[in-house]
Amino acid sequence: MAPTVTQEVLNDAQIAELGQQLRVDAVRAAASAGSGHPTSSMSAADLIAVLLARHLRYDFEHPGDPANDHLIFSKGHASPLLYSMYKAAGAITDDELLTYRKLGSRLEGHPTPRIPWVDVATGSLGQGLPIGVGIALSGERLERLPYRTWVLCGDSELAEGSVWEAFEQAGMEGLDHLTAIIDVNRLGQRGPTRHGWDLEAYARRIKAFGWNTIQIDGHDIDAIDEAMAAARTTRGAPTAIIARTRKGKGVAAVENLEGKHGKPVPDADEAIAELGGRRDLRVQVRRPDPVEAPQRPAPDPNATLPRYDKGSDVATRTAFGETLAVLGDLRGDIVALDGEVGDSTKAQLFEKEHPERYIECYIAEQEMIGAAVGLGVRGWHPYAATFAAFLTRAHDFLRMAAVSRSDINVVGTHAGVAIGEDGPSQMALEDLAMTRALHGSTVLYPCDANQTVQLLTAMTERPGICYLRATRGNTPVIYGPEDAFPVGGSKVLRSDPDDQVTLIGAGVTVHEALAAADKLAAEGVKARVIDLYSVKPVDAKTLREAARATGRFVTVEDHHPEGGIADAVLESFGDGEPMPRLTRLGVRTMPGSATSAEQLDAAGIGAVAIAAAARALTGS
Amino acid sequence: MAPTVTQEVLNDAQIAELGQQLRVDAVRAAASAGSGHPTSSMSAADLIAVLLARHLRYDFEHPGDPANDHLIFSKGHASPLLYSMYKAAGAITDDELLTYRKLGSRLEGHPTPRIPWVDVATGSLGQGLPIGVGIALSGERLERLPYRTWVLCGDSELAEGSVWEAFEQAGMEGLDHLTAIIDVNRLGQRGPTRHGWDLEAYARRIKAFGWNTIQIDGHDIDAIDEAMAAARTTRGAPTAIIARTRKGKGVAAVENLEGKHGKPVPDADEAIAELGGRRDLRVQVRRPDPVEAPQRPAPDPNATLPRYDKGSDVATRTAFGETLAVLGDLRGDIVALDGEVGDSTKAQLFEKEHPERYIECYIAEQEMIGAAVGLGVRGWHPYAATFAAFLTRAHDFLRMAAVSRSDINVVGTHAGVAIGEDGPSQMALEDLAMTRALHGSTVLYPCDANQTVQLLTAMTERPGICYLRATRGNTPVIYGPEDAFPVGGSKVLRSDPDDQVTLIGAGVTVHEALAAADKLAAEGVKARVIDLYSVKPVDAKTLREAARATGRFVTVEDHHPEGGIADAVLESFGDGEPMPRLTRLGVRTMPGSATSAEQLDAAGIGAVAIAAAARALTGS
Repeated sequence: MAPTVTQEVLNDAQIAELGQQLRVDAVRAAASAGSGHPTSSMSAADLIAVLLARHLRYDFEHPGDPANDHLIFSKGHASPLLYSMYKAAGAITDDELLTYRKLGSRLEGHPTPRIPWVDVATGSLGQGLPIGVGIALSGERLERLPYRTWVLCGDSELAEGSVWEAFEQAGMEGLDHLTAIIDVNRLGQRGPTRHGWDLEAYARRIKAFGWNTIQIDGHDIDAIDEAMAAARTTRGAPTAIIARTRKGKGVAAVENLEGKHGKPVPDADEAIAELGGRRDLRVQVRRPDPVEAPQRPAPDPNATLPRYDKGSDVATRTAFGETLAVLGDLRGDIVALDGEVGDSTKAQLFEKEHPERYIECYIAEQEMIGAAVGLGVRGWHPYAATFAAFLTRAHDFLRMAAVSRSDINVVGTHAGVAIGEDGPSQMALEDLAMTRALHGSTVLYPCDANQTVQLLTAMTERPGICYLRATRGNTPVIYGPEDAFPVGGSKVLRSDPDDQVTLIGAGVTVHEALAAADKLAAEGVKARVIDLYSVKPVDAKTLREAARATGRFVTVEDHHPEGGIADAVLESFGDGEPMPRLTRLGVRTMPGSATSAEQLDAAGIGAVAIAAAARALTGS
Repeated sequence: MAPTVTQEVLNDAQIAELGQQLRVDAVRAAASAGSGHPTSSMSAADLIAVLLARHLRYDFEHPGDPANDHLIFSKGHASPLLYSMYKAAGAITDDELLTYRKLGSRLEGHPTPRIPWVDVATGSLGQGLPIGVGIALSGERLERLPYRTWVLCGDSELAEGSVWEAFEQAGMEGLDHLTAIIDVNRLGQRGPTRHGWDLEAYARRIKAFGWNTIQIDGHDIDAIDEAMAAARTTRGAPTAIIARTRKGKGVAAVENLEGKHGKPVPDADEAIAELGGRRDLRVQVRRPDPVEAPQRPAPDPNATLPRYDKGSDVATRTAFGETLAVLGDLRGDIVALDGEVGDSTKAQLFEKEHPERYIECYIAEQEMIGAAVGLGVRGWHPYAATFAAFLTRAHDFLRMAAVSRSDINVVGTHAGVAIGEDGPSQMALEDLAMTRALHGSTVLYPCDANQTVQLLTAMTERPGICYLRATRGNTPVIYGPEDAFPVGGSKVLRSDPDDQVTLIGAGVTVHEALAAADKLAAEGVKARVIDLYSVKPVDAKTLREAARATGRFVTVEDHHPEGGIADAVLESFGDGEPMPRLTRLGVRTMPGSATSAEQLDAAGIGAVAIAAAARALTGS
C-alpha cells in the first residue's frame, strides 16, 4: 500500500494516482457489497480527482458552512466513486467505505442526505441538474454568494426532458457559478447510448440552450483542470464540461464493454492489481473563503395576515395568494415558484410584493419542484404552485424530494371537477392519492379562506413535503379569522348526541355536505358533518368518536374514489379498531365540460347525492 | 353572411378569408360558452387554414381510414380553432359549434376522443408532440404508410422537458413525416414567454436536436403554404415550422396584449365586425390516396406461452419478459417500449425475438408513455416497461392517457423494498396509489411466474390503462400453468371454516403471508390467506366472504400504507357493507440499503410481523 500523503496541491501525476485510488476503492466497495456500479464510477474518477484536488471549495468538517461549494452526483449510481472521494478527503474511514450497501450503513446504494455532505438524494436520473439550478439560483440571485455548484451527470440521463428544463432555466438565468460535468462513457445500462461518443451532439444541444460548452478527454488530467478553471472564470453563462470517458476505465475485463453495468468487476483482486494496487492518498480539500451568514430580506413583523368576513365568498386560491404575499413580509426566508400560471394560482400576488423572491419556472413543473428542493438546500422555505393536475408532471421529483428529506411546500389549485368548463385535462382527480403516498408528507385541503390562511402558515413550520389543495371557484367563508386549524385536526361542523350518520368532506364537498345535512335535518335525519381539512395526518380521534357515535359514514370527495379522503378516513381504523359502515362518494365517471354545479351533480358528489347516500345508509 | 363556398382548391385570398372565418367562429364559440381561449386560437388561424385547404389529407367521413393524416392540437386550449376547423370541413354544424363547453357537448374545453376526429386528449401541455412521435414512428417504421402527422404546438409548452424528449426521439429516428407547427404568439398565460418572438432561439434548439426548421410569418398565407410544402418533401428529418404570430390577431381589443389569455374577447359582436363578419366557407378536404389495410407481422399460432414448474424459483420480471416475447409471436399487433432498462425489466427478451417491434426510448419515460399512446392510436397493443419507481416520471402522461381513452399496457419492475441494496430511489412505494387512481385503470400484481403469464396475456384484451407490477428477485412458483387468474379475481390459498383471521397480500407479500400462516397454524391460530393479484378491480365477493367468516384482516404490502392494497381491500366495503377489523402493514419508514429479506423485516412486512399482527388482532 502506498504511504499516506496529505497535501494541499497535488501535481498532475499525483492526481492521476488519486484517480486510480478512487477506482480501486470503488472496485473494493462494490466487491464488499456484492453489488453496485463500479464501472460507472471508474469512468468519472479522473474528473472527480481533479475536482477534489484543485477546484472544489469545501469544509468537510462544517458541511453547513454557507460558503461551501455544492457537489451533486446526478448519476447517483456512481456512489462508490462519491464515497471513495469522501475517503480521500478524510471524511470517512476505509472501514466505513466497506460498509457500502449494508444494513444500517449510511453509504447506501444511491446517495441520500443521511450523509452530511450530500445535499439531496439522487438515483432517479435527470434530477441532479434541475436541483443544482435551484442551488445556483439561490447563490447568484438571492444570496449573492460566491459558492459554485458542480453537478456530475451521466450521458444516458441527458435523454430525460427534465435535464433540458434545467439547461433552459440555467441558460436563460445566466447562472455562471453552475457547472455540469458530463461523463460521456458511451454506455448506458442496456447498451450504447443514443449519441455514443459524439460529444459534438451534446455540445450542439447544450450550447443552443445558452450554455458555454467545453469538450475534453475525461482522462486527461491537464485538460480536465483547464476546463474546470475555465468554468470558474466564465461569466454570464453556465458551463458544461463534456468529457469523453471509458466506462470501467483501467480494468480490461470491463473497460468499454457492454454488459458490465451495475455489477462488481468479475475479479476484484485482479482489477486492483491492474489499477496499481491500493493507495491511501489523502487530499486536504481547500476550504472556501469565509462569508457572512447568508442575508435574508428583513421581515416586517407588523404585517398582518388576511382576514375574511364570514359569509363572504372567496376562492381558496385567492386566499393562498394573499396569504403568501403576507407570509413573505413576515418571513424573509420564503420564496415562491411558479409554473407560468401565477395569474391563475394567485402566486402572482406574492410576486407583486416580493419580485426578487419569485422564481418563474415557465411551464416546467419538474424544474419547478427541482428548484424548490435546491432552494430548500440553501435554507429557504419554498412554496411551489401550479394547477394541481400538472403537479403529476413532477411526481418523481416529489417522490425523490421525500428521499432527500426535503422541506418544501407545494400548492395545487384548480382541483377537481369543480373547475367546471375546462374539462378533465385540467382537473386534478389524482393529486390526493399522489401526495398522500409520499413518505412523510402532509396533505391539507381547506374549504374556506380563513382556513387557508391558517393552514398555509402552518406549512412553513412543518417538515417534509407539505401539499395544499386549493379550489378555483369561490366558496363561502364559514370560519372566522380566529378559528384554529391544527394540522392533524378536523372541524366538526354539525353534531348532536343522536346523530345517525356522519358526512365527511373537505374543500368544496364540505359545503355540499352541509347542504345535505340541512336537507336531511328537514327530513328528521340527524347528520354529523366533519370538515377533514387535514387529509394527512388525519384526525383519527374525531373519526373514531364519530364512528362510535353514528356507526355510519358517508365520505365525499372531488377526486377519484381511490387514494383520497375515503382512504384517509379508513386509515384511522388501521390498527384493528371497529370500523363504521361507509359509503364512498367520489368521481367515478370521466367528466366533460359543464358548469361547476353541474359537474358536482353529474359526478354524484353534490348535496343531493350525499343526502341520498345518507338516507340509503341509515335506511331512512 | 358570405355565401357557402365548397371547393377543393382555394386561392390565397380565399384561404385568408378562411382564416378570418376560423377567428370569427372561435370568438363566437367562446362567447357562447362564456369561457375558453379565443386569442390562442386566433394566432394560429392562418396556419390551420392553410393546412386544411392545401396540405391535410383526411377523410372526415371515415376517421378510421388508416391512410388519413393525423392532426394533434398539442395546444389543446386552442379548441375553439379546432372546432371551427371541423365546421369549415363540414364535419360539424354551426349549431353544434355553439354547444362548446356546455354540459353533454362533445366539444369540450380541451379536445378529447369523444370527437371521432380527435386521436388523443390534450390540454396538459407538452404531450401532443411526444404522442405524435409514436404515431409517426408507427407509420414510418412499422406500418410503412405515407400518412403525415401534424402537431400544432404553442410556444409556451416548449418549456416542458417532455417536448425535448420528443424532439430527440423524432430527430434521431429521422421521422420525416412528422411536422411540428409552432405558434409563436409571444404570450403565455401570465405574460410574455421566455423567448418572446425570438424565433431563432427556438430554431437553434430544435435544429440542434436534428430537425429541419423553417421560420415564417405565421400570418403570411404564401409563406405558410411554402413551409408546409417543404415539410412534406423534406427527407430524413422531421420539420418544425416556427411561425411568428400575434395572439388575438385581428381584434384590436386583444391583439398582442397581455391579460387576454383564456377568456372570451370583451365584445364579441364588435370583434366579429372587425374581422369582417361571419362567413360560411366550406372546404372539401382532400382525401388521402387509399392504402391497403395496415399489415401486421404474421402471428405464429403454434407459439406456446411459458410454463413454469411448481416449486422452482423465478422472478416475475423474467416471466414478464419471456411471456411478452411469446405474445409477440402469437399476435402481430404487440409492440414493446423500453426506457433503457430492458436488460433489467427483461423486455429485452421481446427485442431479441421481435426487434422491429421494439421501441427504445432511452431514459425518457414521458416519451415512452407518449409513444405508447401514439402507437395505440394506430391500433397497436403497446407494452411499455421500466422500473416501477420511474413510471412516476410519466404520471401526467398516464393521467392524460386515461382521458384519451387509450388502451395501453404498462409494466413496472423492481417494485418495493424487496429490491434490496439499491435503496429508496429505485423502490416503487407509490406506484399502486398512482395507478389505482387513474380513471378506468386495471392494476395487477402477480406473486409467481405462472400467474404473470396469465395476467400479462389478459392485459392484451383489456381496455384502458393496464398496469402490471413485477418483482426483481426470484419468488417461488406456487401455481401451476393451468391455474386461471381472471382479472378481478383473487386466490384463496389457505381456508378453513374455523379461520380466525384473513391475511391478504400480493406479489412478494403473498409468500410472507403464507409463511406467517404456517407459523400461526403451528400455534393453533387458523389464518385464511388471500392472494390479491388483481388490485383493481378487486375481488369484493371473496373479501366480503372472508370478512363474514373471520371478521379480521391483516393486509400486507410492499408499498407505502397509502393508496395500495389495504385501500383496495376496503374499497370492497364502500357501499355500506359491514367492515372487518383491519391491521394494515406497509412500508412506513424510509428504507436504506440492505438485503431483500432484511428490508422486508425492517419494514415490518415480513412473515414475523404478519404473524405478530394476526396474533394481536385475534388476541392469541
